[in-house]
Amino acid sequence: MGERRITVIVHGATGRIGTNQHLGRALLALRKEGGLALADGDRLVPEPILVGRNGAKLQALAEALAVERWTTDLDAALSEPGEAIFFDCAATGSRPALVRRAIAARKHVYVEKPTAPSLAEALELARLATRAGLKNGVIQDKLFLPGLQKIKLLKDSGFFGRILSVRLDFGYWIFDGEQQPAQRSSWNYKKREGGGLVLDMFAHWRYVIDRLIAPVTRISALLKTHVPSRRDERGEPYAVDVEDAAYALLELEGGIAATVTSSWATRVRRDDLMIMQIDGTAGSAVAGLHHCWIQPLVATPKPHWNPDAPQPMDYFQQWQAVPDNTVHPGSFRRCWELFLRHVAEDAPFVPTLLEGAKGVQLAEAAHLSQREKRWVDLPELML
Amino acid sequence: MGERRITVIVHGATGRIGTNQHLGRALLALRKEGGLALADGDRLVPEPILVGRNGAKLQALAEALAVERWTTDLDAALSEPGEAIFFDCAATGSRPALVRRAIAARKHVYVEKPTAPSLAEALELARLATRAGLKNGVIQDKLFLPGLQKIKLLKDSGFFGRILSVRLDFGYWIFDGEQQPAQRSSWNYKKREGGGLVLDMFAHWRYVIDRLIAPVTRISALLKTHVPSRRDERGEPYAVDVEDAAYALLELEGGIAATVTSSWATRVRRDDLMIMQIDGTAGSAVAGLHHCWIQPLVATPKPHWNPDAPQPMDYFQQWQAVPDNTVHPGSFRRCWELFLRHVAEDAPFVPTLLEGAKGVQLAEAAHLSQREKRWVDLPELML
Amino acid sequence: MGERRITVIVHGATGRIGTNQHLGRALLALRKEGGLALADGDRLVPEPILVGRNGAKLQALAEALAVERWTTDLDAALSEPGEAIFFDCAATGSRPALVRRAIAARKHVYVEKPTAPSLAEALELARLATRAGLKNGVIQDKLFLPGLQKIKLLKDSGFFGRILSVRLDFGYWIFDGEQQPAQRSSWNYKKREGGGLVLDMFAHWRYVIDRLIAPVTRISALLKTHVPSRRDERGEPYAVDVEDAAYALLELEGGIAATVTSSWATRVRRDDLMIMQIDGTAGSAVAGLHHCWIQPLVATPKPHWNPDAPQPMDYFQQWQAVPDNTVHPGSFRRCWELFLRHVAEDAPFVPTLLEGAKGVQLAEAAHLSQREKRWVDLPELML
Amino acid sequence: MGERRITVIVHGATGRIGTNQHLGRALLALRKEGGLALADGDRLVPEPILVGRNGAKLQALAEALAVERWTTDLDAALSEPGEAIFFDCAATGSRPALVRRAIAARKHVYVEKPTAPSLAEALELARLATRAGLKNGVIQDKLFLPGLQKIKLLKDSGFFGRILSVRLDFGYWIFDGEQQPAQRSSWNYKKREGGGLVLDMFAHWRYVIDRLIAPVTRISALLKTHVPSRRDERGEPYAVDVEDAAYALLELEGGIAATVTSSWATRVRRDDLMIMQIDGTAGSAVAGLHHCWIQPLVATPKPHWNPDAPQPMDYFQQWQAVPDNTVHPGSFRRCWELFLRHVAEDAPFVPTLLEGAKGVQLAEAAHLSQREKRWVDLPELML
Repeated sequence: MGERRITVIVHGATGRIGTNQHLGRALLALRKEGGLALADGDRLVPEPILVGRNGAKLQALAEALAVERWTTDLDAALSEPGEAIFFDCAATGSRPALVRRAIAARKHVYVEKPTAPSLAEALELARLATRAGLKNGVIQDKLFLPGLQKIKLLKDSGFFGRILSVRLDFGYWIFDGEQQPAQRSSWNYKKREGGGLVLDMFAHWRYVIDRLIAPVTRISALLKTHVPSRRDERGEPYAVDVEDAAYALLELEGGIAATVTSSWATRVRRDDLMIMQIDGTAGSAVAGLHHCWIQPLVATPKPHWNPDAPQPMDYFQQWQAVPDNTVHPGSFRRCWELFLRHVAEDAPFVPTLLEGAKGVQLAEAAHLSQREKRWVDLPELML
Repeated sequence: MGERRITVIVHGATGRIGTNQHLGRALLALRKEGGLALADGDRLVPEPILVGRNGAKLQALAEALAVERWTTDLDAALSEPGEAIFFDCAATGSRPALVRRAIAARKHVYVEKPTAPSLAEALELARLATRAGLKNGVIQDKLFLPGLQKIKLLKDSGFFGRILSVRLDFGYWIFDGEQQPAQRSSWNYKKREGGGLVLDMFAHWRYVIDRLIAPVTRISALLKTHVPSRRDERGEPYAVDVEDAAYALLELEGGIAATVTSSWATRVRRDDLMIMQIDGTAGSAVAGLHHCWIQPLVATPKPHWNPDAPQPMDYFQQWQAVPDNTVHPGSFRRCWELFLRHVAEDAPFVPTLLEGAKGVQLAEAAHLSQREKRWVDLPELML
Repeated sequence: MGERRITVIVHGATGRIGTNQHLGRALLALRKEGGLALADGDRLVPEPILVGRNGAKLQALAEALAVERWTTDLDAALSEPGEAIFFDCAATGSRPALVRRAIAARKHVYVEKPTAPSLAEALELARLATRAGLKNGVIQDKLFLPGLQKIKLLKDSGFFGRILSVRLDFGYWIFDGEQQPAQRSSWNYKKREGGGLVLDMFAHWRYVIDRLIAPVTRISALLKTHVPSRRDERGEPYAVDVEDAAYALLELEGGIAATVTSSWATRVRRDDLMIMQIDGTAGSAVAGLHHCWIQPLVATPKPHWNPDAPQPMDYFQQWQAVPDNTVHPGSFRRCWELFLRHVAEDAPFVPTLLEGAKGVQLAEAAHLSQREKRWVDLPELML
Repeated sequence: MGERRITVIVHGATGRIGTNQHLGRALLALRKEGGLALADGDRLVPEPILVGRNGAKLQALAEALAVERWTTDLDAALSEPGEAIFFDCAATGSRPALVRRAIAARKHVYVEKPTAPSLAEALELARLATRAGLKNGVIQDKLFLPGLQKIKLLKDSGFFGRILSVRLDFGYWIFDGEQQPAQRSSWNYKKREGGGLVLDMFAHWRYVIDRLIAPVTRISALLKTHVPSRRDERGEPYAVDVEDAAYALLELEGGIAATVTSSWATRVRRDDLMIMQIDGTAGSAVAGLHHCWIQPLVATPKPHWNPDAPQPMDYFQQWQAVPDNTVHPGSFRRCWELFLRHVAEDAPFVPTLLEGAKGVQLAEAAHLSQREKRWVDLPELML
């Protein structure tokens, strides 16, 4: 049982998610444990190289994490011989150019979502990587949230019967910086800096719905800029030029109806910041990030609508929690394990760059629906 | 301080709502209390005449309620001299013909919603009654639900600041009659009998939203027949040819966004069978039929999205209940008091037949949006 | 982006507050973080010199805190060239003489409250420092208690509407040393040593009320020595010659009424050792040191006074907690940051020595009111 | 063991308190039980005569309560021979004239508080009744509230040790009639109609404090009209010309300090609408209308004031409830039993009209203190 090593060129390591999730809880955790156990008994140890523009920051981070290698010269890193993965979790705007350079250098490619700012670019990257015979993929971490894993368990067990409808509600109140500072960066509210709720979240909603329930076939969206003027990190006022809320109707394969609401300007009276409700003929479930509650048909109450008297039922007590029977190792860690196996032993892998392009497709369709005030179909994407 | 009497010809008295709400809790309750106190000190006593086709049923009801007069001859009742109100709470299909007869007999007209099966008919009735100089109106009872009255109190007090968005969720699980009998009549699921969720509920949603928040200006709807085959009251299977769920995006005056979901095929994990959430810059509220909870901006929490750890916040504890400071006399009673004052002393009255036509307009627009897969505008209705 | 240094001569460093708050959590914390970030990008590093009479104690403290400089020779410290701040947190009695020496040496002056034992002295110090063109100030740490910061947030947001009344209740049971040792030093109960509840706490109440609500304009006070004989730290009995409780009515600008009770001889059945309730037309709030609860007009209950039956309402459940959306860096730290910016870059600064004199004014007025059994006005103080 | 009868001429029977408390729960309850058991074994049966100006109302009430006698002719009732009690619970303004007529007719006199609109009149009534050798008294029902009875039990048992201070907080939010109707009658806010918080409540506070703790010796008061314009029962605006809040410092015999706050413009975050806290050297108690909590010295916690960290103590959990070991027969019933025994068997009786005058004295002193901005002494009242 030997040890294999694979270089992972990490671009965007100094960002919060790069540092904490991709490095700390995934790549470095795997390295500390002696590597990932492969099917043949070997262990695969990822060897990260941190890449970025700010040398001082990179050096400080490398020291803090005890990572040996860092550089500001991406081409040097890419030109090293041997099998390697190029991973990008920096800003979306420069992703296509970086990925093209990595493909040219014949490195496998793994990226954060969205895979590109436009569907055309996203598709092009998928085609380039595939034609070059390189492994490629996109992070789909939300699938591994404990709450959504419970939905998957229920779906796979046939709990729902025939699924009728899905509701996905996401959001919370982001302060506008007037009386209280905002808890999200101001770039989220600026088009030029890659902001906008749709580009941020619809990449997630696409794979969550496609893979947990059924593929999305069409969309009607209403996008809003509820809070048009805000104050930034230094207290300076600025105008918001992207949507901060998106309300969408979706239709899925099999005629399933879905409503998806996402807002940075709502107050939360539900089980979690994101919840997903699935109604089926045989039962329903509501999941948050971690917890999930079910109500099978045989335990469905029969309430009566009587406006003259306060309801005698407590509609929350009528659901049962799905217990936590599994230890969840972390969503990003799960993503990395799948891709590393895909690279090292050609294990099956679903979320390729083509799958990643679907998230961009949904976001573009939402904007088109808003502009043309109509439903927009989502045709199948082809390489 | 004298006593005045007004005849109310009640068509549809033997139905559940006719018997319990319109007669029992409104007209007969007012009569028992000695009439409605008018502004000039007089008391107005309603004198019902029950009208229908089944004489035996009418007689039994009249005896049970201690109502002196009933008849199967509507024309006879309409041809009596003197001021009178014709009230119809029977099936929608025959309403236009009945109302036309009442107008021809120069009776004031008051009806349950929807005022007609189509917008064209609804508008025609509104025009006929108005041109004849007769008082006319439609029941809008949901406005007086204690929970929605609290929303009104909040709105009038300026609690919300600028309103950004509205969500209205209605529905519960109607059993299909297989293992357990359905708790709604089978006619609700048959087009020919005036069924369909949209025609039933959108008349309510229109006035609730128009009058509590802001007028609806356009709609995009997704209608579904989630459960296409059911068993009726006798256990016989039948096919459903109307929608049993409707998912809609609405835009209101001032750019407010609204999502409205209505379903007879969903399981309830919320505060009530119908809830309405309003988000504003200065605060949010969630109301059920009776209760209402608020969260002002100054008490809005600042949650952090952290999928690695279960949320430390309880998102239900962060809301405060609006107390029950008022005794609610019953929603239908409130509707009748307003219309009786309108008839007797020309008091201001909002829900005329023209207002009632707006509910039919919204229902028609929902169906059109579904057919043509686009947003449908709601132009202002004119007499 | 350079580094600037400023000498801070700390007199009274060996006291509990001097060591823990002013040095540990403020000056030394700032120094450890590389200084305070100024508007021009420079960082201002405070360099403390510990001054006192007991050389051994000073040396031990300096070593424990890793402070390089200490001395028992105040004049030597004051005569060093260069810009410096003289800070005094030792006993109030000797404060005027020390501050006069510092002003003569042209050092900026920052002191704990009360700024002097009498209003005449307090005003004189304010005049001397101002006329010498030196920066001067008084610590007003209670303003930065998280609970009171929430009151400020509410006030600034207009939550209260028109403010009607304020209640401030402070106190707890200080054991008398008979069966259990006292938890406050015996000097607090001796006039000669600067004791007395009024001199201690009214300096706080003045700025808390003036700056959070509205300026105090007059006072009626009832002072009491509830427990006239006590045992000191060595178990020796002594007579108390100052008040240990003060009950006061205040009137504020705009006709607001305030009741302020302060007692070292009361037992606590309220949310915190100090609470402040503010009632306004649009809402009320109750704040403790850290937490704050609100009840807006729209959620105000309508209780009925019925002595025949136990109250059905829980008057604590009807309030909503204001969430902790901000990290509080420590009250004394906040005071120091403001004064350091005032010295280094002439940033605006409210709590000058003239403001500090107002606290002494309120304490003197309380004593005068007690002696003459009448309300005492608080005229505006002039330099 | 015989049965004796005593006539009680009830003036003001049609008011809420007259009907429910004095008649329903006291006089008629006693009559229904066969009378009050006297010391000699006889039973004393009260025989009410209802007196007032509105004959129709009196007749209806008499029938509803099964009372045989009613009249609109007070002089006729008073001129009947035999021993009788004249009882007045109608408006205060006409009380002196009525009581003088009763005394002239040589009837015993029992009245609701306040006994007269002014101290001079109250004293005159006390003198007239006493000199005529007639029994006389005032209702002091609050003493018998279960919560205050527990205070009395504690006081009598020596629980408090030496009493140091008293706090009495009363009040709640009375709506102003704008968005929600007021829950108190508009006459409470009009001087001409006998309104004003002080006249209403200070009569209570005087006997509660005098009799439960110690006699009041002086007062300093701050009176406020917090809400100067309101809407009455018909929605008409009116100006308030009396105080709606009173903040008072009191001194009691023995140097005890008391603070008494009473407000119709405050929101309630305490155990009850009225609470009373008593601090003594050996223990403290807090009582509401029904419940009472204690903290003896040996169970007194030693909290530390530490603004840097949220308080670890729950200051409500540190008190113990006094259990309900006694059935309370109703406060007004207790008042009547005492006065009936006083009349029938010359049993000792404290609350004479002279005691009643003390309540008026406190109210007048509060107004004088407000006008002259000084403490006002309360000299002993002499017949």
